Amino acid sequence: MTTPLRNDRLLRALRREPTDTTPIWLMRQAGRYLPEYRATRERAGSFLALAQHPELACEVTLQPLDRFELDAAILFSDILTIPDAMGLGLSFAHGEGPQFARPVRNAADIARLAVPDMDGELRYVTDAVRLIRNELAGRVPLIGFAGSPWTLACYMVEGGGSRDFARLKTLCWNEPALAHQLLDVLARSVATYLVAQAAAGAQALMIFDSWGGMLGPAAFREFSLRHLAQIVAALKADTRSRELPVILFSKGANASLAAMAATGCAALGVDWTIDLADARKAVNSQVALQGNLDPATLRATPEVIRREARAVMDGYGEPTGHVFNLGHGVTPEVDPENVRVLVDEVHAYGRTLRGA
Amino acid sequence: MTTPLRNDRLLRALRREPTDTTPIWLMRQAGRYLPEYRATRERAGSFLALAQHPELACEVTLQPLDRFELDAAILFSDILTIPDAMGLGLSFAHGEGPQFARPVRNAADIARLAVPDMDGELRYVTDAVRLIRNELAGRVPLIGFAGSPWTLACYMVEGGGSRDFARLKTLCWNEPALAHQLLDVLARSVATYLVAQAAAGAQALMIFDSWGGMLGPAAFREFSLRHLAQIVAALKADTRSRELPVILFSKGANASLAAMAATGCAALGVDWTIDLADARKAVNSQVALQGNLDPATLRATPEVIRREARAVMDGYGEPTGHVFNLGHGVTPEVDPENVRVLVDEVHAYGRTLRGA
Repeated sequence: MTTPLRNDRLLRALRREPTDTTPIWLMRQAGRYLPEYRATRERAGSFLALAQHPELACEVTLQPLDRFELDAAILFSDILTIPDAMGLGLSFAHGEGPQFARPVRNAADIARLAVPDMDGELRYVTDAVRLIRNELAGRVPLIGFAGSPWTLACYMVEGGGSRDFARLKTLCWNEPALAHQLLDVLARSVATYLVAQAAAGAQALMIFDSWGGMLGPAAFREFSLRHLAQIVAALKADTRSRELPVILFSKGANASLAAMAATGCAALGVDWTIDLADARKAVNSQVALQGNLDPATLRATPEVIRREARAVMDGYGEPTGHVFNLGHGVTPEVDPENVRVLVDEVHAYGRTLRGA
Repeated sequence: MTTPLRNDRLLRALRREPTDTTPIWLMRQAGRYLPEYRATRERAGSFLALAQHPELACEVTLQPLDRFELDAAILFSDILTIPDAMGLGLSFAHGEGPQFARPVRNAADIARLAVPDMDGELRYVTDAVRLIRNELAGRVPLIGFAGSPWTLACYMVEGGGSRDFARLKTLCWNEPALAHQLLDVLARSVATYLVAQAAAGAQALMIFDSWGGMLGPAAFREFSLRHLAQIVAALKADTRSRELPVILFSKGANASLAAMAATGCAALGVDWTIDLADARKAVNSQVALQGNLDPATLRATPEVIRREARAVMDGYGEPTGHVFNLGHGVTPEVDPENVRVLVDEVHAYGRTLRGA
């Protein structure tokens, strides 16, 4: 745990300090586009088994780092570990999204929810963090993560995926106090979970609010952002997590970037539907930005990938405070060689931008 | 065709002229949430049969107007009529989205595409327009519509729905000239189709760019907006359509509202993920705005529906140039009585805003 970090580009960029080049990591960098990932997953038997066995989670976390010059590792896990630990019964039907056997539908269901035991049901996560951190041995920093309260609640109330998550929205509008009771226990759980990941060795923390963008701006502030801010405050108040940069990513909530930056987070993830120049203007350069290449670009030719990567970096417009990423996860159809093209181009062009 | 229009609120609002109250119509106002629609659809046998029989299309178009004080009718049809008429073989599998038997995959497929015959394969559409216009007898104006070139191409190249429409994006990036050849024949087809609807009696024209928001802003301008502008220019150049207001709706493309307003359209549809005040600022009040209540609101209580409707109207901030609508279509689970609550509140509060 005390091995010095040999590549601190990510942490420096998140603090908006100068770096020799632009750091890059990719959402779902450990995933189905990699043959070695598919092999490990086959051995594990299922996605959940893979996430729940620390050795296997460690193995797939490191796979993309062995192939590409990525500047961060991110814990291999799922955003739905918390509701699963709360007893909702998570499963992934073949080719389908997540399903909960016991969705949360009423006041009694919500009253039963409690912050899970980090040394109990969720021990496998902190074990994985410790193992990965140890195996990394200072190569790059390790990012821990969790789903946001709003996004967890979307799945918990719906019982799975949904086109519009109207069940949770209806709960929020018709019974806001009850909705906040649900979102509050989730916020306390996420904060506890992220503190535990920090204590186990995570060096940066990211919160994925995958469905925040399904809300209009006013509803987003009330039902998603309020509880994101609650988590950031809790992380700042705990000695184990207070030094770690926090990255918030609410996909599609581009109308609310300024409000998100005001939470005290270090950085915002940005999807590809906004120019980074406009995003920077919106947050008044108060936070670092992480993004935002359209993930479909990785299915184009190497020439296109290089051009579009440079366009993202030119759009951001200065060399500090930018962590290169996709605007969403790597998709399974991507050729791994295209990821190499991207990573190498970002580093090369990042040096050019710095006059090296 | 010469019956005077008794309710011209929509047309006046689209021209940003004063009205006695705020006009309202709803995307998918003729749809599965209405029991009378489900009965007609059952008689028709399928969604496509319903759309392709002018008498049945007319019947369902008028159904919501018989229930609610809506200020416009919109042709009941599908956005994919054009590629179907181009010979791609459209079908809707039970409970699934649209499928094309013969997707467009290469240069030869694209070279074969031609503007469909409006008096041939697409005659059923103009017949429906004539019939509906006649049956409306001046009650409210009739909106004709089409899918955008980008959105049609998404389905045509993919062969159906998709998570990310990466096939078309890849075509655009790797072979932009070929992509523009496809988008150009679609733009010419859409323009011809909308002119034919205008000639048959449509009084306003809307273009649905359902997947424009899947593109980053630069790609949106090149691959969606350029061809929307081409259509608007063609409509302005034709005596049969030049007087009709054109509404553009690119769901999710909120970063590009100013660029869309510059096409010469009369109005923009706006989804619910941006405040109308910000949307107005973005377009510098150069066009009318149509929107933007979160469609899930219609599943909340009447009290919430009224409050949220007023919030949308207050957000727009002035009484002219606003056409109330949802930010997307009415969903099947909605109680029709909630639509009544919404329509009546918009009219009542619109009168209050005007000091009546």
